[in-house]
Amino acid sequence: MAQPRLASLDSSMVDRLPAYSQPLFVAKSKKGLTFEAIGQHIGRAEVAVAAMFYGQAQASPEDVEKLSEILEVPKENFEAMMGFPDRGRAGPMPPVEPLIYRLYEIVQNYGYSFKAVMNEKFGDGIMSAICFNSKVEKEVDQAGTEWVVITLKGKWLPFSRF
Amino acid sequence: MAQPRLASLDSSMVDRLPAYSQPLFVAKSKKGLTFEAIGQHIGRAEVAVAAMFYGQAQASPEDVEKLSEILEVPKENFEAMMGFPDRGRAGPMPPVEPLIYRLYEIVQNYGYSFKAVMNEKFGDGIMSAICFNSKVEKEVDQAGTEWVVITLKGKWLPFSRF
Amino acid sequence: MAQPRLASLDSSMVDRLPAYSQPLFVAKSKKGLTFEAIGQHIGRAEVAVAAMFYGQAQASPEDVEKLSEILEVPKENFEAMMGFPDRGRAGPMPPVEPLIYRLYEIVQNYGYSFKAVMNEKFGDGIMSAICFNSKVEKEVDQAGTEWVVITLKGKWLPFSRF
Amino acid sequence: MAQPRLASLDSSMVDRLPAYSQPLFVAKSKKGLTFEAIGQHIGRAEVAVAAMFYGQAQASPEDVEKLSEILEVPKENFEAMMGFPDRGRAGPMPPVEPLIYRLYEIVQNYGYSFKAVMNEKFGDGIMSAICFNSKVEKEVDQAGTEWVVITLKGKWLPFSRF
Amino acid sequence: MAQPRLASLDSSMVDRLPAYSQPLFVAKSKKGLTFEAIGQHIGRAEVAVAAMFYGQAQASPEDVEKLSEILEVPKENFEAMMGFPDRGRAGPMPPVEPLIYRLYEIVQNYGYSFKAVMNEKFGDGIMSAICFNSKVEKEVDQAGTEWVVITLKGKWLPFSRF
Amino acid sequence: MAQPRLASLDSSMVDRLPAYSQPLFVAKSKKGLTFEAIGQHIGRAEVAVAAMFYGQAQASPEDVEKLSEILEVPKENFEAMMGFPDRGRAGPMPPVEPLIYRLYEIVQNYGYSFKAVMNEKFGDGIMSAICFNSKVEKEVDQAGTEWVVITLKGKWLPFSRF
Amino acid sequence: MAQPRLASLDSSMVDRLPAYSQPLFVAKSKKGLTFEAIGQHIGRAEVAVAAMFYGQAQASPEDVEKLSEILEVPKENFEAMMGFPDRGRAGPMPPVEPLIYRLYEIVQNYGYSFKAVMNEKFGDGIMSAICFNSKVEKEVDQAGTEWVVITLKGKWLPFSRF
Amino acid sequence: MAQPRLASLDSSMVDRLPAYSQPLFVAKSKKGLTFEAIGQHIGRAEVAVAAMFYGQAQASPEDVEKLSEILEVPKENFEAMMGFPDRGRAGPMPPVEPLIYRLYEIVQNYGYSFKAVMNEKFGDGIMSAICFNSKVEKEVDQAGTEWVVITLKGKWLPFSRF
Amino acid sequence: MAQPRLASLDSSMVDRLPAYSQPLFVAKSKKGLTFEAIGQHIGRAEVAVAAMFYGQAQASPEDVEKLSEILEVPKENFEAMMGFPDRGRAGPMPPVEPLIYRLYEIVQNYGYSFKAVMNEKFGDGIMSAICFNSKVEKEVDQAGTEWVVITLKGKWLPFSRF
Amino acid sequence: MAQPRLASLDSSMVDRLPAYSQPLFVAKSKKGLTFEAIGQHIGRAEVAVAAMFYGQAQASPEDVEKLSEILEVPKENFEAMMGFPDRGRAGPMPPVEPLIYRLYEIVQNYGYSFKAVMNEKFGDGIMSAICFNSKVEKEVDQAGTEWVVITLKGKWLPFSRF
Repeated sequence: MAQPRLASLDSSMVDRLPAYSQPLFVAKSKKGLTFEAIGQHIGRAEVAVAAMFYGQAQASPEDVEKLSEILEVPKENFEAMMGFPDRGRAGPMPPVEPLIYRLYEIVQNYGYSFKAVMNEKFGDGIMSAICFNSKVEKEVDQAGTEWVVITLKGKWLPFSRF
Repeated sequence: MAQPRLASLDSSMVDRLPAYSQPLFVAKSKKGLTFEAIGQHIGRAEVAVAAMFYGQAQASPEDVEKLSEILEVPKENFEAMMGFPDRGRAGPMPPVEPLIYRLYEIVQNYGYSFKAVMNEKFGDGIMSAICFNSKVEKEVDQAGTEWVVITLKGKWLPFSRF
Repeated sequence: MAQPRLASLDSSMVDRLPAYSQPLFVAKSKKGLTFEAIGQHIGRAEVAVAAMFYGQAQASPEDVEKLSEILEVPKENFEAMMGFPDRGRAGPMPPVEPLIYRLYEIVQNYGYSFKAVMNEKFGDGIMSAICFNSKVEKEVDQAGTEWVVITLKGKWLPFSRF
Repeated sequence: MAQPRLASLDSSMVDRLPAYSQPLFVAKSKKGLTFEAIGQHIGRAEVAVAAMFYGQAQASPEDVEKLSEILEVPKENFEAMMGFPDRGRAGPMPPVEPLIYRLYEIVQNYGYSFKAVMNEKFGDGIMSAICFNSKVEKEVDQAGTEWVVITLKGKWLPFSRF
Repeated sequence: MAQPRLASLDSSMVDRLPAYSQPLFVAKSKKGLTFEAIGQHIGRAEVAVAAMFYGQAQASPEDVEKLSEILEVPKENFEAMMGFPDRGRAGPMPPVEPLIYRLYEIVQNYGYSFKAVMNEKFGDGIMSAICFNSKVEKEVDQAGTEWVVITLKGKWLPFSRF
Repeated sequence: MAQPRLASLDSSMVDRLPAYSQPLFVAKSKKGLTFEAIGQHIGRAEVAVAAMFYGQAQASPEDVEKLSEILEVPKENFEAMMGFPDRGRAGPMPPVEPLIYRLYEIVQNYGYSFKAVMNEKFGDGIMSAICFNSKVEKEVDQAGTEWVVITLKGKWLPFSRF
Repeated sequence: MAQPRLASLDSSMVDRLPAYSQPLFVAKSKKGLTFEAIGQHIGRAEVAVAAMFYGQAQASPEDVEKLSEILEVPKENFEAMMGFPDRGRAGPMPPVEPLIYRLYEIVQNYGYSFKAVMNEKFGDGIMSAICFNSKVEKEVDQAGTEWVVITLKGKWLPFSRF
Repeated sequence: MAQPRLASLDSSMVDRLPAYSQPLFVAKSKKGLTFEAIGQHIGRAEVAVAAMFYGQAQASPEDVEKLSEILEVPKENFEAMMGFPDRGRAGPMPPVEPLIYRLYEIVQNYGYSFKAVMNEKFGDGIMSAICFNSKVEKEVDQAGTEWVVITLKGKWLPFSRF
Repeated sequence: MAQPRLASLDSSMVDRLPAYSQPLFVAKSKKGLTFEAIGQHIGRAEVAVAAMFYGQAQASPEDVEKLSEILEVPKENFEAMMGFPDRGRAGPMPPVEPLIYRLYEIVQNYGYSFKAVMNEKFGDGIMSAICFNSKVEKEVDQAGTEWVVITLKGKWLPFSRF
Repeated sequence: MAQPRLASLDSSMVDRLPAYSQPLFVAKSKKGLTFEAIGQHIGRAEVAVAAMFYGQAQASPEDVEKLSEILEVPKENFEAMMGFPDRGRAGPMPPVEPLIYRLYEIVQNYGYSFKAVMNEKFGDGIMSAICFNSKVEKEVDQAGTEWVVITLKGKWLPFSRF
């Protein structure tokens, strides 16, 4: 397909998200931009850009400036993006969306395995979900099969001894 | 620390797991083996080995043979590991364990972002949690800070058109 | 009854569904078309057509073109149907609708039986709900009794060994 | 694999099931019998046999006789199988087992589509989950891909007009 | 009391019900009609008439005609009543309304007793809630005490043997 | 079938019920008695007898005497039946047993209809579930179809005006 | 404080309550009336008056007349108050409001104690919450400490023997 | 009935309660004592005594001494009663026991009314459930009807201004 | 950053909060004031001021006067702030916001430890959340690391002996 | 009171905790030691010691040595304390214990206030519950009133920009 596939916003989700989400998605669709393209323009990771659109990540003044530029929407419309996000309300948990459920299922099935392996490698602590970044890549194997590779990278935080 | 840190099994979890889990963990502790060491011996990934111990992954006859060898426990004790696992019951959801909750929180906060990015990169579908593998690595940056890097790799499954 | 029985959209469900659902149902009722008739016109299965109306399946550009044609509604109205569906929110789970509850009850009562039989026939894995299709047929037996026959067909996905 | 793959009972499930379930599964494993083989011997469908093992279906005196025969266990051990089952408690809902979750997800995603199509084909009513049978078949397509085909067949029950 | 007591619709319930519910209740109040009176006019049971008002039962074309007549509202307003009801959403479960909670409590306390008695009288099966009717009667005993008598009558459906 | 069909107690239910439940059911099975037969012997309704067995109704000293007589078990074994029942814990709510779920579904679908009809017939109040009795009858229509008729009879309690 | 403290209606609660609640509270505030004052005027208990304002108790025609009088609002505005209340939806359960939670906690902590004491004093039955009244009083002890005294008075209903 | 009615402990509740509960109830039954009688002996309120039996209230050394005396059980058996209770786990919430549910329903229906009345009488605060006492009394009116009168008395705690 | 960081109100939260919340936040942002600055102006703690903005704490007439002054909004707009707050509905529990979840997790992990330590230090009782105040401070250690120090101070309330 | 008040372990909690919890509490009671005294001996904070007893914090080899010493129990009994804790399962959430509920209520009522204040003081991030410590102190004011002062101190973690 010559033209890019674009994520858009289901109208029934709008109420759960900050007021700037819908106009951002509308502008993105109008300009025909992927999150990857926007990320390259503003110098942030693709997942982080999507997270800003869903109200899950804070935008800096520069982000807003550049988003305004690339989306051709006055930056005044997106100033609330520089506020402190109220995270965690984009969708229900457990997820009902099949794609998101699969990620939830990985936590359900492998959660204790991840814990055991991290404990052995790092000691008693957690992988931070705050001091954290993530990317999604596509790999195509020799048989032409497409694979999704998600990388979750978080700082190791040992439990304080007190 | 000279001796390896070893994951063990909290006694209050035993009832939720298959009968072979506890003796496996006991034998592992007795032999002082990490999941990494066991994985190298039996030729499987560290996360997969942990998953077998928690009853979340099937063992092949060869796995049982080699586990028996390295743990010095007769393989008869672990034959149920070759059965079909009844997955998903290792712990409660939402997770109450802080380490596992952080993974759940990543799904909660970034779930729709992952979906949007995957949809743009792959189309309408999901990342399989079945035709799937995973690894956990440690990275240490220049400042000496430890980072956890989890890789989730799953086959892309497009929704059938029917 | 000479004229066809037509599914319509309960007004109190509208908020849970994408914005295009209601006008699609209205147009369908106005034209007096069943999902079967629409499916034949656009070359897709009856269940898949209903799924598109409820925002549970993606429409291709050709689908939108043909829906526009048969429903006599400009295709601009349904362009959001080509977006990536946000599935799983059509109704509550457990279902409160008696017809849908019966399907849920089948999963509740026979779930482990299906698992056991599939494990014996295929090994350790799942039936995909993504690489999947379904149909609903009517059978009338010799006594004149009507039977519903639902066929669920999904690709077998074995758990990866890693 | 020359010897048949056999479903067995996870030890942590035993408490949720009737007392006869575990010895039935143990005897089945000892004899190396699939549900299909047992079904052929006793003249019942494979899914129904599994349902009896999980306490989800009633056995007739003849069933118990024949099960006793083929499993080589005195029929006295299984007399409780002729009681009235207390159905629905084999596993948690929503299911946590990935295979069973996929079936649940089909109900979640396609429930209203099934309802709409049945309403158009049959009128106002439900498909019975009581006057009901089911089978699971394997299909292999030309590319050698395995498909699961589940057939759910239930009597149509129109809502009474009163 | 000379004038009849009339059930009306709490304004905060309107959103959960189909769009025709509120105007039906308004018209009923305006005409001063009980469900019993309406039932007598249209030839249906009182409980069934109430169920139609709450969107829990389908109306036939004749029902709509007669409702239109007795309520003096053009039948065009109630055509959606002939659609297929999306049942089960009139109120929360467990019920918070004391009157409805008492019925729920009867199921909670006596559910297994009803099951045991029906199993002994009929075998393995269920009482249909679809092929079903119900009535509510008032009895006054010699002491002048009023009693409610609810009759639930449903077809017995034996579990299929398959 | 010449010998009566008898309700028995699923072994996995035992923990939820008082200690006397299981021996009562065992004795009942041994004597081949239905709840109807026991009720006739002790002069109580069939549903009430079942309720006593499930720990949902109190037994009088005479009941215990007569139960001891007919079941041929020393009455000392059942003295706890004269205690004050701790009702409501026989099974989960929402019910997972199909027979009991159907009763729950009737409350879900017709709850507001019952309320409306009772309000019109009796005023503002409830039907008591305490000053209450119930019976289950079988009716066979001309076509030979079996119907279950459940009668719920409770005292009308008007809300106090204060 | 010379002027009375007045309960008002949080704007975010309005949707859960009947349409007449908000104008009642507004009129009450405008007139500077407490529930006690209104209760004295109309001859009903303070708690009952508050319950009418929250849609939890039915008003008689005289109540509406007198409320109209004291609040100086035409009685037409409050006619829906004479309808049959749809109780139980004023707030979430478990309560999140600290004052209401404390009452819930009393039930949680002392529920079985109340049951035991009532059973010993009255036998097997319940305290009616329907044939019921309640009052809230202030007591000030010698140290000047204020105490709340809530009286719950309900008719004793013995379980019917049937 | 000449001999007193005595509350006892349902055997299926034992696991939720502290280890001393069951022997306390057994001794109480053996001695034929009501909570009222025990309360009079040890100088505490009847509800408080029951609360101690259910592990919801702390016993002083004197209480244990006197309980030991009146129940004729060595006080060593009840020393754990002087520990700090782990309150709130005697039964499920929402309550399934009808008697306890009625109290819960009073909170559900009248919670906001109690709040409004207390706010008007006392200001912004709560009634303490800690600095609290309660009693249950029986009143018999002229018609011979029995009424339960529960008194809840708690210290008023105003919200701190900070 | 020269200009202060300001908390604002996510538009999707507005419906859960009292009507005055949004205009308060808007005025605060327009004036560029932190909660600390407002607190200093009106003589209340920073956390208490934020609580008033979220409808979780009552304002005195003086508070409203001073808020009106510093925010330059007529005090009429905020008179509802002097009403009795309907607390507890600002966000879902368990919290989905990561910052708030961490506080919840502290209660989950250390709740029983806090209880044990308080019981040993104070006896049988609770720390009041009503007669309570709190502050949040920043500490920077020698390494320049920032630490949050939350102080929760509540009156100790011993359980009444009754 | 001359002898110290000691926290002990409710017998009904034992199953939720690691196997070492109960013997630790028993030994502590036998030796008459508070958590404060143990903390002083082993050089850890009182809350941390309690957390180790409840299986919520890891013990170092030195901790086990010193615990063994002060409790006079061979250290072999407590070696599992050096394992990686499986946190979060000590009690239900929402808490039913009144003391712990008050802490939960503080999060419920003040959660967004804490977030707003922290965001203004620190930016976009969270207070760590891992790199964290806590203490409980008693303050007695001039009137002799006892106050609990809980200090929660956690490292500030800003959200990564990626």
